[in-house]
Amino acid sequence: MNSYRPQLSNEALPLTHQITVIDEKGRVQEIEIPGERPLTIYLDKKEIVTLMTLGGAPEALTLGYLRNQRLVTDITDIQSIQVDWETDSVAVKTNVSPGSVAQRTEKKTVTSGCGQGTMFGDFMSELDALKLPDDVYLSQPHIEQVIEFIRNQPSIYKRAGSVHACAVFKNNENGPELVYFIEDVGRHNAVDAISGLMWLDQISGEQLIFYTTGRLTSEMVIKGGQMGIPFLLTRSGVTQMGLSLAKQIKMTIMARCSGEHFLVYEGANRIQFRTPSQTT
Amino acid sequence: MNSYRPQLSNEALPLTHQITVIDEKGRVQEIEIPGERPLTIYLDKKEIVTLMTLGGAPEALTLGYLRNQRLVTDITDIQSIQVDWETDSVAVKTNVSPGSVAQRTEKKTVTSGCGQGTMFGDFMSELDALKLPDDVYLSQPHIEQVIEFIRNQPSIYKRAGSVHACAVFKNNENGPELVYFIEDVGRHNAVDAISGLMWLDQISGEQLIFYTTGRLTSEMVIKGGQMGIPFLLTRSGVTQMGLSLAKQIKMTIMARCSGEHFLVYEGANRIQFRTPSQTT
Repeated sequence: MNSYRPQLSNEALPLTHQITVIDEKGRVQEIEIPGERPLTIYLDKKEIVTLMTLGGAPEALTLGYLRNQRLVTDITDIQSIQVDWETDSVAVKTNVSPGSVAQRTEKKTVTSGCGQGTMFGDFMSELDALKLPDDVYLSQPHIEQVIEFIRNQPSIYKRAGSVHACAVFKNNENGPELVYFIEDVGRHNAVDAISGLMWLDQISGEQLIFYTTGRLTSEMVIKGGQMGIPFLLTRSGVTQMGLSLAKQIKMTIMARCSGEHFLVYEGANRIQFRTPSQTT
Repeated sequence: MNSYRPQLSNEALPLTHQITVIDEKGRVQEIEIPGERPLTIYLDKKEIVTLMTLGGAPEALTLGYLRNQRLVTDITDIQSIQVDWETDSVAVKTNVSPGSVAQRTEKKTVTSGCGQGTMFGDFMSELDALKLPDDVYLSQPHIEQVIEFIRNQPSIYKRAGSVHACAVFKNNENGPELVYFIEDVGRHNAVDAISGLMWLDQISGEQLIFYTTGRLTSEMVIKGGQMGIPFLLTRSGVTQMGLSLAKQIKMTIMARCSGEHFLVYEGANRIQFRTPSQTT
């Protein structure tokens, strides 16, 4: 394991803005709303995509986007990531030949949990090769701790709403330990930024738990799988493709997580119930 | 106004599926989840995009997607739309020359309210030319009726969660009248399907009210503006770009709509408050 880190700018934006609204009684109120900025990614000067982002972790978002879209496969290929909010853009410099970037951006498969998104390359075939570890377990008290942690976490969501959060915990024997907590106006951005941070910190997914406030759609399950994380939790629900992909890659997915309540949709074999399961 | 309609298949899918989950007591429960299928759009045999959709209105979704992405600008250019769930695809035949399709799909601007999406063409410049009517008004009792209608509407959301709904009402003098109600796993799909239905039925937006369960992000405001609808309501929140675009095109946007409560973020001049506004 090397300790390579690309050169990164440090251009996190202020995350909320105060605005004035009028309520149903005609009264003026001051409230906060989440920031949202376009960020156009240039990979070796080639324009790739414009993301709408909260802007709290633009360098990690860029890294994770390039990683999850398979536009860059080795972090040591990246020299630098330079965010410039004057132009709402981020310049990524690589060491690879220009031809290989062009090749990777050519084949485009578009999917998204929100119904319309972009993914490059053929990740669907990757999934067949994916093996999530079978010998990891998550106990019911630890599930409750994850839910409780998220409930207590200070967040943009509590101040301003309209954002999604993703968090990654280490699945330690003595309880879950928070590693990353990222919010963004798009849940895909939040998960991409976490993927970028994991890439930077060279953390693999086997011993991790992934929590998201958003629905477990096909794309969330795919990204969780690509990160190698066996546990995916949400307080929201699951779509049919999300469930179907989770079955395919044998991921443990849990939804409607709230207080002491949760539903296991797939992979209950990795859950250590307080009351032994009656379902064998 | 002509009454042209392209030939359309009628391939709506069953919308929910019953599945088995395990709750926190280890008990088996039967619940419903929303369906979700990929649908790949082929425009004159050219692959355009794969949308993940509930599948309740695939022909209208296809029409609205092509319209909102400016891939087809006149509905009479479309001969037929044929959905085939055997291959998860929809074939769109047009009367236009193949070259013009290729040209339109070449320039790609990517934006999305969920943070990552696709839009073709230069809609941002279109917005400058957009004029929403100034002489339309929405009264407080009628706002409450819209909110109440959505609350009482039987929906996939109530049965299975994990979907977004969009609705369009006529802003009649004697009260709002529902025109369309569409749910999808992606709120962009729901709004695109409504746009497709409006195109088919040749309804313009000036006298309409648009309601969505999702956040008012940049893309929702853009799409509402493109449809020419002056009122955009949500039970959720507003992002900064959504607000900024609404200011630019002078759209009335209202969020946190629930029961008798709502907040007006922009365009309060079109609201007729029960209690006269103290804000002039």
